[in-house]
Amino acid sequence: MEHLEIERKFLVKSNAFKVDSTLDIKIIQGFLNTHPERTVRVRLKGEEAFLTVKGIGNDSGTTRFEWETQITPSEAINLIDLCEPGILEKVRYHVPVGKHVYEVDEFLRENKGLIVAEIELQHEDEVFEKPDWLGKEVTGDVKYYNSQLSKNPYSNW
Amino acid sequence: MEHLEIERKFLVKSNAFKVDSTLDIKIIQGFLNTHPERTVRVRLKGEEAFLTVKGIGNDSGTTRFEWETQITPSEAINLIDLCEPGILEKVRYHVPVGKHVYEVDEFLRENKGLIVAEIELQHEDEVFEKPDWLGKEVTGDVKYYNSQLSKNPYSNW
Repeated sequence: MEHLEIERKFLVKSNAFKVDSTLDIKIIQGFLNTHPERTVRVRLKGEEAFLTVKGIGNDSGTTRFEWETQITPSEAINLIDLCEPGILEKVRYHVPVGKHVYEVDEFLRENKGLIVAEIELQHEDEVFEKPDWLGKEVTGDVKYYNSQLSKNPYSNW
Repeated sequence: MEHLEIERKFLVKSNAFKVDSTLDIKIIQGFLNTHPERTVRVRLKGEEAFLTVKGIGNDSGTTRFEWETQITPSEAINLIDLCEPGILEKVRYHVPVGKHVYEVDEFLRENKGLIVAEIELQHEDEVFEKPDWLGKEVTGDVKYYNSQLSKNPYSNW
């Protein structure tokens, strides 16, 4: 399945988002390619698994081509074995705010201390609520792409 | 679907193989990663399309991990757009010889003049017939990996 992914990304200033979280899922992922023009991601997400290809973002970084297919967890484990060094682990929280749901990623291991919130939009100029725990916008900042966090983790910054 | 691919690869000395070919299919393919440890290939093959991940070969180069999933031709065309420069085109012939079928690839464009035959085996020491048109063995020679031919084509050698 392919689509244009329209989303904005923010840093998170506090753990206050956890009060409103309706779901949290463990994610383990590796990259078969971390090149920003053609990232290839293998992801174990709870009991499911996915292979995802993303292109580079547009000028604002808000919109990226994304193609995804579901795979089995055992396929994912074998493919993660082939991945570049730098496997990412994080917990993803679903936090409803107004009419939207923020996906908040609390990174573990080499990226511990980094918390990032993403909101997916239907179009680039869609209005959305910003909760108090939301910090600086980092949409389109390649440094915060998960593919780049796997090579140059937060603990190195 | 994943498996260990056991195959041997040879150069082809003449066009004599075409007499015995039972099928030929046009293949167009690009790579989302050409790194030999984790090649990610997008292939249009006749009217079908596939996404394939391969690992590095064992010491002899005979055995490689391979994972493949079928995708739609339109997904393939969009993914080929994201690929590294160096799209490969070739015609694949199926040539039955004894109990096996050689897959003979006649490369086009930047790799015109190169013809390579592959035979897939059930185990590494399996016996197979070698027809007269078969030339030097190049199993495990990374230069002949399709991923490498896309970056450093035959016409540059």
